[in-house]
Amino acid sequence: MLAKVDYQKAKSKTINFFDRVGIVLTSEEKQSIEVADFGLNELEVQGLELITYINNEHYCAKELVLFPNQTCPEHKHPHVGEIKGKTETFRCRWGKVWLYVEGKPSEAMQATVPVGSEDYYTVFHEVELNAGEQYTIPPNTLHWFQADGRGAIISEFSTTSRDESDIFTDPRIKRTPEVAE
Amino acid sequence: MLAKVDYQKAKSKTINFFDRVGIVLTSEEKQSIEVADFGLNELEVQGLELITYINNEHYCAKELVLFPNQTCPEHKHPHVGEIKGKTETFRCRWGKVWLYVEGKPSEAMQATVPVGSEDYYTVFHEVELNAGEQYTIPPNTLHWFQADGRGAIISEFSTTSRDESDIFTDPRIKRTPEVAE
Ligand SMILES: [Zn+2]
Ligand SMILES: [Zn+2]
Repeated sequence: MLAKVDYQKAKSKTINFFDRVGIVLTSEEKQSIEVADFGLNELEVQGLELITYINNEHYCAKELVLFPNQTCPEHKHPHVGEIKGKTETFRCRWGKVWLYVEGKPSEAMQATVPVGSEDYYTVFHEVELNAGEQYTIPPNTLHWFQADGRGAIISEFSTTSRDESDIFTDPRIKRTPEVAE
Repeated sequence: MLAKVDYQKAKSKTINFFDRVGIVLTSEEKQSIEVADFGLNELEVQGLELITYINNEHYCAKELVLFPNQTCPEHKHPHVGEIKGKTETFRCRWGKVWLYVEGKPSEAMQATVPVGSEDYYTVFHEVELNAGEQYTIPPNTLHWFQADGRGAIISEFSTTSRDESDIFTDPRIKRTPEVAE
């Protein structure tokens, strides 16, 4: 569980990232920045910061921040009944991201799998995304991603987000953020 | 019809807008910037510049540029058979945009209807969008928008774009861009 003080600290850090590249948020949006530590208690290593611009029954747009060397853990967006799993386009806006998806493992991998969580990273086909580059992940496909030492900002365009149905490889993960009072 | 030299000029101007705010495009994307003069031959007055990041069967993401005082003419995205009309979220990234939609006409309108085209502007409910502000336009709803004297950059998140089915109020308009060789 994320302590409130750590949540506030991560929020300011996220706002600084956006400020630095000229991404403007309203004050309501700044208040609603989501800090996900996935219940793993090591936000700087495995975590994700994000703001959702819109999430309606058809499409979703978010801005994601990865702190330096931070990893968003491996997961997929499954089909749920009649509802197709989420398709996600990641567009790197600033920094460098290594994205790993299903497929032939890359020979020289640039990211570092978070220490102690090696069992929960299983796909190693690397896609490097620098500012202006993007990649679309089909539904129901495992993926994870990590920023380099400077961190990164990623625009996510997708079908509707239904975070509660995401499947993480690591069974310890809780997707819904919990912040201690 | 847009002369090739004017197209190239508008393209460079668009790239300058993106550069100024740190929006990075690949060189392929720079090449595929769309300049729409809507067949009206007055690009600086009525026109739109844009790059499409992704347009798949579910969602679409674009970056739009309006030059100073430039207007995107009134139109709507109708339902076509079983296919629902496009829903559009406009998020102002830089500058100031006045968006006009169906509804109670605003008393003090800030935009100027393009001279000579007054007959083709019929909705006057004003929504002012500054950087960080956004508005979602339902399908099949008339709308038009204009930048102030500095121009503007707008991120558009939407359902699938099917430009060929757009309905413009001005019958002189051709949506498909034509560039003379
Ligand atoms: Zn995902
Ligand atoms: Zn429209």
